[in-house]
Amino acid sequence: MGKCLVAQSGGPTAVINATLAGIVRSNQLNKVYDAVWGGLHGIEGILQERFVDLTEMSEEENLILRQTPASALGACRYKLRRQNTEDLKAIFQILDKHDIDTMFYIGGNDSMDTVAALAAYAAKNHITGHRFIGCPKTVDNDLVTTEVCPGFGSAAKYIATTAQQTWLDLNVYPDSRREIFILETMGRDAGWLAASACLSGIVDILIVPEVPFDREDFLTRVREIMEQKSKCYIVVSEGARYTDGTYVSEGETHIDAFGSVVLGGAANALQQMILEAELSQRCRVLDLSSAQRSAAAEQSLADVEAAYNMGMHAVELSRDPSFTGRMIAIRRHDEEQMKLEYYDIEAEKVANYVRNFPLEWLREDYAGVTGEAIAYMRPLIQGSPDIIIIDGLPAYVLPYYLQ
Amino acid sequence: MGKCLVAQSGGPTAVINATLAGIVRSNQLNKVYDAVWGGLHGIEGILQERFVDLTEMSEEENLILRQTPASALGACRYKLRRQNTEDLKAIFQILDKHDIDTMFYIGGNDSMDTVAALAAYAAKNHITGHRFIGCPKTVDNDLVTTEVCPGFGSAAKYIATTAQQTWLDLNVYPDSRREIFILETMGRDAGWLAASACLSGIVDILIVPEVPFDREDFLTRVREIMEQKSKCYIVVSEGARYTDGTYVSEGETHIDAFGSVVLGGAANALQQMILEAELSQRCRVLDLSSAQRSAAAEQSLADVEAAYNMGMHAVELSRDPSFTGRMIAIRRHDEEQMKLEYYDIEAEKVANYVRNFPLEWLREDYAGVTGEAIAYMRPLIQGSPDIIIIDGLPAYVLPYYLQ
Repeated sequence: MGKCLVAQSGGPTAVINATLAGIVRSNQLNKVYDAVWGGLHGIEGILQERFVDLTEMSEEENLILRQTPASALGACRYKLRRQNTEDLKAIFQILDKHDIDTMFYIGGNDSMDTVAALAAYAAKNHITGHRFIGCPKTVDNDLVTTEVCPGFGSAAKYIATTAQQTWLDLNVYPDSRREIFILETMGRDAGWLAASACLSGIVDILIVPEVPFDREDFLTRVREIMEQKSKCYIVVSEGARYTDGTYVSEGETHIDAFGSVVLGGAANALQQMILEAELSQRCRVLDLSSAQRSAAAEQSLADVEAAYNMGMHAVELSRDPSFTGRMIAIRRHDEEQMKLEYYDIEAEKVANYVRNFPLEWLREDYAGVTGEAIAYMRPLIQGSPDIIIIDGLPAYVLPYYLQ
Repeated sequence: MGKCLVAQSGGPTAVINATLAGIVRSNQLNKVYDAVWGGLHGIEGILQERFVDLTEMSEEENLILRQTPASALGACRYKLRRQNTEDLKAIFQILDKHDIDTMFYIGGNDSMDTVAALAAYAAKNHITGHRFIGCPKTVDNDLVTTEVCPGFGSAAKYIATTAQQTWLDLNVYPDSRREIFILETMGRDAGWLAASACLSGIVDILIVPEVPFDREDFLTRVREIMEQKSKCYIVVSEGARYTDGTYVSEGETHIDAFGSVVLGGAANALQQMILEAELSQRCRVLDLSSAQRSAAAEQSLADVEAAYNMGMHAVELSRDPSFTGRMIAIRRHDEEQMKLEYYDIEAEKVANYVRNFPLEWLREDYAGVTGEAIAYMRPLIQGSPDIIIIDGLPAYVLPYYLQ
């Protein structure tokens, strides 16, 4: 056999490297490829032939890699376009030059589109001998079809823990001190991350992109809660929006140099409304920023295992010469036990779709989520891996692109 | 013996309840008092005779209490003034009425002032039979004399871990993507918390209140770092200020209803400067808000033990009838091993003083801290307690004032 190549793309997660570790380890246990190479900075680095040999990674490095957040191979924002035959041709030349049979791409929506594009280009041009396989990751939990998205569980655990602990903090002063806390999570289009805060059982108000935001309804609800207990804990998705689609954070939203909408400040916007309506003089905000997707010190064991085993399965499935343009997906058989079944689907069917938080799992009046939502999310945050500590802090693998 | 009373005050920490747990456990192991009562919401609740009996706390509750962040007894912002003889008289009447011999007050600067005030009032009025003992806690590490302040170690560990993990996140994209990250920590007057981020070894720029901030010097430094590696990791204290004392966050600072300055937005102010100077189009901000003082899921074991043992020692020391107006302090004998010696000092000598971060531990050009600073801080973040988990999240004791 030739080599396989692994690359990562899109936003980091706390377990994206666990999938990489699983791929490397799988090939050490059951040799399918002569070598496992990492491609640095996704497609962008592959086009520049920036590779690192991971074949003989030590077991210790593999263990530490599993607990290292963010992409150890580096990510890119370079989008491979199907009409860009120059890029596509170049990639196949590079794969041939280095005797690379299989490419595993760990990423989200865009990465699955890349997998589909490469497989389609090969089919169209009758190029055989290559496989392109997608391994999903996303903190947003918004990929369609797969019931479990590695990355979400750890982010959910971190968010729910943070909600629980900052709620305890919010409550320390007597009723005479009226206080409001607003936690902002990521989630441009889907409310999964914000909803995960409800696992803590303390959320008074939840605002997600799936339900149009109404300022007056919101303020009424805050007023009611403040009258009742003088403290109010609010969680909001960065992508919260009004009926007309305008973001709640509008004043703070801007378009970045790559044309993507950069959100931020939904919590600040709500804080402003609360202060203006004089519902409380004290309104603290916590925007979890990139900490929520990189909080590997609080990884969920269920999430790490799902990510790692996905990598293991991907290598095994790639033994089939016709296995290309596929994404590994996960199905749950027994939600309580978190027993997972790995299967595969066309990468094409995942790319460019978003799975929203189910409306029927949301309670009215921004009152959080239903028991069904909790039953779905709870298994995803179970367990804590034994974190290897050096000098009091989690050990990590220095990103390969910095070595 | 009569009863003892424990109360908490000031801002929450991740281990303030460990000291409470130590007091309760100490009296179970070696009975000094007939009962251990908790006073709800500090001096404010004591004046209202709001008590809870903790004498027979189960071992399990005691273990969970140790890992519960924020004040389980509730805190207050009520300041006991020495000239307010009405309050002082009332407190002694209440103590006598309930046969309370000793009051342990777990708190910061203001709480030590309360301890000193009560002891002074008793001495002045020849009231005997009561002891007032302070147990320090603060995330800020700014209490004078004590070398170790319970609360700081856990906050430092959380901040350093967050810095490490968000730094990995910051770096994932290629050099072509210029990015800056700004982490804001608490620290109104002292830079300890911001400095603790340097334990991660990744901080490019550190801005603390102890060193006057200069906008041009700062921007020059950022520019140099960006030219060198296209990513820059900045940490700033909320209390960062210019030479004339104006806060960097000035635009966002306001005075709260109690006359305290509420800071916020130092990081946002720096972000604004960076965007205006066009040093980077991407500049993400993370203000850790109350999460940093309540992150008990990532407690430092060294910190929990210091807090717990302080409670144990306080009870033992209180056997001496003349032991009043004192604060328990901690001295380190062997920094590496974190061997602690508990001793006591006049509470008066702690109240209203601030211990700044030593200037000689700061490197020039905002370049972080020296090896001596790291050698001081490193032992404080060692170890992780076994956290009891329920349903995937840390178990906690529901605050007694909500039970």
